[in-house]
Amino acid sequence: METSTLRGKHLSARPGMESGAAFIDGEVVPIGEAKISILDTGFSRSDVTYDVVGLWEGAFFRLDYHLDRFERSCRELRMTLPYDRQEIVDILTELVVASDLRDSYVEVICTRGIINPSRDPRTFENRFYAYAVPFVWLLPEDEGEKGMEAIIARTVERISPRAIDPTVKNFHWGDLNKALYEAYDRGARYPILLNAEGNVTEGAGYNVFALIDGRLLTPASGTLRGGTQKTVIELAEAEGIPTEIRDVPEAEFRQGEELFSTTTAGGVMPITSLDGEPVGDGKVGPVTRKLRDLYWAAHRDPRYITPVDYPDAPR
Amino acid sequence: METSTLRGKHLSARPGMESGAAFIDGEVVPIGEAKISILDTGFSRSDVTYDVVGLWEGAFFRLDYHLDRFERSCRELRMTLPYDRQEIVDILTELVVASDLRDSYVEVICTRGIINPSRDPRTFENRFYAYAVPFVWLLPEDEGEKGMEAIIARTVERISPRAIDPTVKNFHWGDLNKALYEAYDRGARYPILLNAEGNVTEGAGYNVFALIDGRLLTPASGTLRGGTQKTVIELAEAEGIPTEIRDVPEAEFRQGEELFSTTTAGGVMPITSLDGEPVGDGKVGPVTRKLRDLYWAAHRDPRYITPVDYPDAPR
Repeated sequence: METSTLRGKHLSARPGMESGAAFIDGEVVPIGEAKISILDTGFSRSDVTYDVVGLWEGAFFRLDYHLDRFERSCRELRMTLPYDRQEIVDILTELVVASDLRDSYVEVICTRGIINPSRDPRTFENRFYAYAVPFVWLLPEDEGEKGMEAIIARTVERISPRAIDPTVKNFHWGDLNKALYEAYDRGARYPILLNAEGNVTEGAGYNVFALIDGRLLTPASGTLRGGTQKTVIELAEAEGIPTEIRDVPEAEFRQGEELFSTTTAGGVMPITSLDGEPVGDGKVGPVTRKLRDLYWAAHRDPRYITPVDYPDAPR
Repeated sequence: METSTLRGKHLSARPGMESGAAFIDGEVVPIGEAKISILDTGFSRSDVTYDVVGLWEGAFFRLDYHLDRFERSCRELRMTLPYDRQEIVDILTELVVASDLRDSYVEVICTRGIINPSRDPRTFENRFYAYAVPFVWLLPEDEGEKGMEAIIARTVERISPRAIDPTVKNFHWGDLNKALYEAYDRGARYPILLNAEGNVTEGAGYNVFALIDGRLLTPASGTLRGGTQKTVIELAEAEGIPTEIRDVPEAEFRQGEELFSTTTAGGVMPITSLDGEPVGDGKVGPVTRKLRDLYWAAHRDPRYITPVDYPDAPR
């Protein structure tokens, strides 16, 4: 456990940044003023990767894991980050201190950069952006017992890994967006997408798990290898719950006695209905509950956290 | 042929906008100052559609066709444009007059809007942006006789229409970007992507055609139905050259006596080599040349153009 601090620089909360702060073009600005060029190919070609780190009770959760993955994503896209690891940690620290957030959704972004007349992406200057905003709950915080109403999307399939590598975290959300609208049309809020072979992949920003005969299954391909997914697998295995990362056909997924999803933006989220039918008895299952409790307990585990050295006394 | 003008408003070229002008949040600004929020889901979820209109010798080319397609794309994504057709024409006119451009690449963009705590895209306020910059030549203007060195991409396949509808013009360019880098690695600059079935789709921003036994073939699925593609089909048919819009297997495409690509950003562009081998004799073929000439001649055809009423005498 090491403490993160911006060495040699006085840090403090800044007025006007209560809703969040962003790092744009070398400056820390209020999130409402955080803007990027319309000619940044991160926008106009979605030529961008990103990652999200949770900050909980004033400590980053699995910071190195997320920054390792982010750096790998940049390498895969042949982008070069303009800042090294320590500089990025310093920037993120400055953002959460400036906004005085203790529970925060912290995003790091690298884009190919602004297009130039050559239109050759190898010549663009890669850009780094970051921001910290209040913690995001993909399933609203007061709906933890209600759980998610999910659907298996019928109108769209997940983008193939042969077209876009889903392990490089990306903003290609067109399929997920379409599935979201299908969910709304069907009276639900949380879509799950299949791939062309009919296997379950992931939802709109979350991995999924099924508990079948005491084993936890989670899809192996066509999905991001999520950080929360990874943590849950580690916690399950420590509890003696076997896990399998492999192809999960739709029919098998539907046999789940318990279903849940995982994301940094909310942790372990029970899926209590699927296509309008209750999952199990329609309540949060015991294994899901156990893993959810363990997940939040891990947020105080020194092995996982990087406390921020706030200048003021804890609130 | 109708003249486009911003009624009831004095228009003039503005200093500082020679490199282009943009319409952002209701204001016309120099292109270098055109910025969008980092929380706009057009960026952070690529939840956006766009279209491009060419301006040539002071006249928009097929303005209504492009704006029709743009409005259809918005409807398909269930977005509502905050401006009607005439207002959009007025904005585009203001942009090209402000920048005093006579040959311009004019882009219209609609995004889902800025994310809010509900994270429900139905509640976001859809945003319209536009900009005009100097005309873009995807194949540099002085390389028209040299033509394009193309490759068939091997490392990536085109995103499936079952995941993302390619007829709704979008910024999901991850597959195209990867193919571009493959082209560079192989000593070329212009990739062409196959779909999962091994049929030719399109390139990084352009449709493709093959001339085989006097017939023009162009892929039917997995591609944008391009505006320049459409114009070329119309011009070819008027010349008595039969055209077929259908699946084109890779092997058949390779039999092309002539190959060319089409895009607003450059028109009809000869493909003179494929995977390092010359196409035909490696020179611009007669049908390609004929269609390229007809394409540019059409830019003076009153049926196709909408002249801009510039306040100053023509330069």
